[in-house]
Amino acid sequence: MAETAFAPSFADKLRLARDASRVLAAVTSDRKNAALRAIAAALMQNESRILPANQLDLANGRDNGLSDALIDRLRLDEKRLVALASAVLEIVDLTDPVGVTVRGSVRPNGLAISQVRVPFGVVGVIYEARPNVTVDIAALALKSGNAVVLRGGSAAQNTNRILVEVIQSALFETTLPIEAVQTIDEFGREGAKQLMRARGYVDVLVPRGSASLINSVVAESTVPVIETGAGVVHLYLDESANLATAVEIVHNAKVQRPSVCNALETLLVHAASAERLLPPVLARLHEAGVTIHADARARSLFADAVPATEEDWASEYMSLDIAVKVVDDLDAALDHIRQYSTHHTESIITNDLGRAERFLAEVDSAVVMVNASTRFTDGGEFGFGAEVGISTQKLHARGPMGLAELTTTKWIVRGSGQVRG
Amino acid sequence: MAETAFAPSFADKLRLARDASRVLAAVTSDRKNAALRAIAAALMQNESRILPANQLDLANGRDNGLSDALIDRLRLDEKRLVALASAVLEIVDLTDPVGVTVRGSVRPNGLAISQVRVPFGVVGVIYEARPNVTVDIAALALKSGNAVVLRGGSAAQNTNRILVEVIQSALFETTLPIEAVQTIDEFGREGAKQLMRARGYVDVLVPRGSASLINSVVAESTVPVIETGAGVVHLYLDESANLATAVEIVHNAKVQRPSVCNALETLLVHAASAERLLPPVLARLHEAGVTIHADARARSLFADAVPATEEDWASEYMSLDIAVKVVDDLDAALDHIRQYSTHHTESIITNDLGRAERFLAEVDSAVVMVNASTRFTDGGEFGFGAEVGISTQKLHARGPMGLAELTTTKWIVRGSGQVRG
Repeated sequence: MAETAFAPSFADKLRLARDASRVLAAVTSDRKNAALRAIAAALMQNESRILPANQLDLANGRDNGLSDALIDRLRLDEKRLVALASAVLEIVDLTDPVGVTVRGSVRPNGLAISQVRVPFGVVGVIYEARPNVTVDIAALALKSGNAVVLRGGSAAQNTNRILVEVIQSALFETTLPIEAVQTIDEFGREGAKQLMRARGYVDVLVPRGSASLINSVVAESTVPVIETGAGVVHLYLDESANLATAVEIVHNAKVQRPSVCNALETLLVHAASAERLLPPVLARLHEAGVTIHADARARSLFADAVPATEEDWASEYMSLDIAVKVVDDLDAALDHIRQYSTHHTESIITNDLGRAERFLAEVDSAVVMVNASTRFTDGGEFGFGAEVGISTQKLHARGPMGLAELTTTKWIVRGSGQVRG
Repeated sequence: MAETAFAPSFADKLRLARDASRVLAAVTSDRKNAALRAIAAALMQNESRILPANQLDLANGRDNGLSDALIDRLRLDEKRLVALASAVLEIVDLTDPVGVTVRGSVRPNGLAISQVRVPFGVVGVIYEARPNVTVDIAALALKSGNAVVLRGGSAAQNTNRILVEVIQSALFETTLPIEAVQTIDEFGREGAKQLMRARGYVDVLVPRGSASLINSVVAESTVPVIETGAGVVHLYLDESANLATAVEIVHNAKVQRPSVCNALETLLVHAASAERLLPPVLARLHEAGVTIHADARARSLFADAVPATEEDWASEYMSLDIAVKVVDDLDAALDHIRQYSTHHTESIITNDLGRAERFLAEVDSAVVMVNASTRFTDGGEFGFGAEVGISTQKLHARGPMGLAELTTTKWIVRGSGQVRG
């Protein structure tokens, strides 16, 4: 259908998205919530269209040799579709950030100024073959009053096309502009490139996915970008770390869900306590099936390890692998983190107040922790509800991004004839 | 001196700036304020070095045919030097944004999370031949805990070199790292290009100057950019506008300081009140020496005008010129603004509540006003003290940028052994 002669061009789609964003900016929370409820219902009602499209993508994926992990991310089934619809309903319950007054005052000359949250306008998202992102991001964008232009991975294009059609039909039913949610998958890589250069049409671009995807968007985009995600996450066991705390937190940070960006990748241990801490900490990981890539000092304390190479220190494994290094002191730990961190999340396990405060102050990451699992860097865990992504950049948003991070602000100035002296 | 064989390379300078930023991030407000006072004093004490360097730039500028306006911006004299030093002292009085807690809570599992303001790290600034920017930005960056790498226009390079030396000597005297303020002017255009690509060394880049400078930085930079400034600023006289208010505000917005970005460039008037409003409004401008570029309908009501061309609607004159157009209604005014605005500031003069609210809601600019002069879009007028610039983008900062906009945030998570279930 989308490929007929009557299909809108790339430029048409962006223009329509921009027009839709102007309508959406003025829509009340009640109407946006009604649309989200309709989307959740439509996802459930259209299982018979969505799952076969997904089967087609899965078959193509297997033919093209996609890894099991990617196939798993691509797969939708009845249970996952229910989860997707539930996630949309959870967004209904979140507070609408649009219209919130951030600050305001009456100036001495009587001008009333206020800074108010408004939608960005059009949000572009470039991501990989994860159909859940299509639905999550569309729902978050709508709730925050933004139109969204989606460019998903080609491996999920059949699933995404049907998902967007289902979302658009729900928008139509609730009299919101259907062009508020659009896919540009049919324009392929060239469409993605044009999206990155669509200044004046796209207000912000959010790449979600691998480090290489994010880096290429950052390098090529002239539209402002919010980087999300890559996490070479470190945990440092200080000299004074409590053993039981160390064992539990390291295990949780590495093993609970190794495929996500807040999972632990590199463990650093103070030399003076390596003998006390490393054998039990690594034994627990080893039992859980973790492959331990360790430097020579760590290997001398734990035999079931492979030698770590330079590459290990820079690896975001996203698997049951961990890099382990013994360092001479906190300074050496901080140096290592400065060199290899992707500025996502770092945690210290310690009972020493001074070292805890130094770690919190000196590690330059979106989230820094004391005595907690790195897995807590998450919008839900922070109390934001659904999460747009985790920003690892410093501009606009840093750390877990909630709905407010999908808005900008506008200054409203109300006068009664004031001129400047 | 800077050109000897021992001069640091471009890469050295950025590395040193990054190292300096780490020191500066932990410096107390008291020490930063002491450094700012020392800088103000040093500017006054080094008049005999600064003014001759400026004379050299002025002479070169005249040889190279710089316009009078640019020569004027480039010129320093004793009075302007005093003003520069005073501006630095004013920054002493501003509240330090670093360490401010933006929000925080204790999560149900006992994790205490807080979002705290921290410096960006290294701020890069690319600007034109305005020596005051060198001092202003250096002082604002220091106060907000950032190191700054300056690339000024080549026309001011002698002045800037001495200013940076004077600032560095004051930093040295107050035991702050002198590399916290650096110029890369000696590396010319190639240096500017490298600065735009210095990811990992420069955290944010602020271009200040002409639209073409800003556009080229946006297009070439892989470092996150905060765009400042170009202002094709509109004012719309609604049907219900009060005549005296209209005359005074239009005059103030256009004439009070035409060379700045918040000055009025295009006046739109509702057709039904054009006959009532335009003759007196334009007469007042004409008396003040303003050249009026008007469409046919406006010219039929005011003879002392030249025909407006398509180019006029897109012009940021920055001079005593104004474009004037009669529109059929508010919708036509909003359409015109959508097409030509640079999203800086727009104002409506009206007594109609409904139209005022529509204008505020529908104009997509950093600052939207009712019954006020566009000249109020200014950090000082908004109560921020000194201003980094006026952001016309939507990411991170929008409108006048104060010290807080030179910071990012970091999440601090304090636990007692929590793991994720």
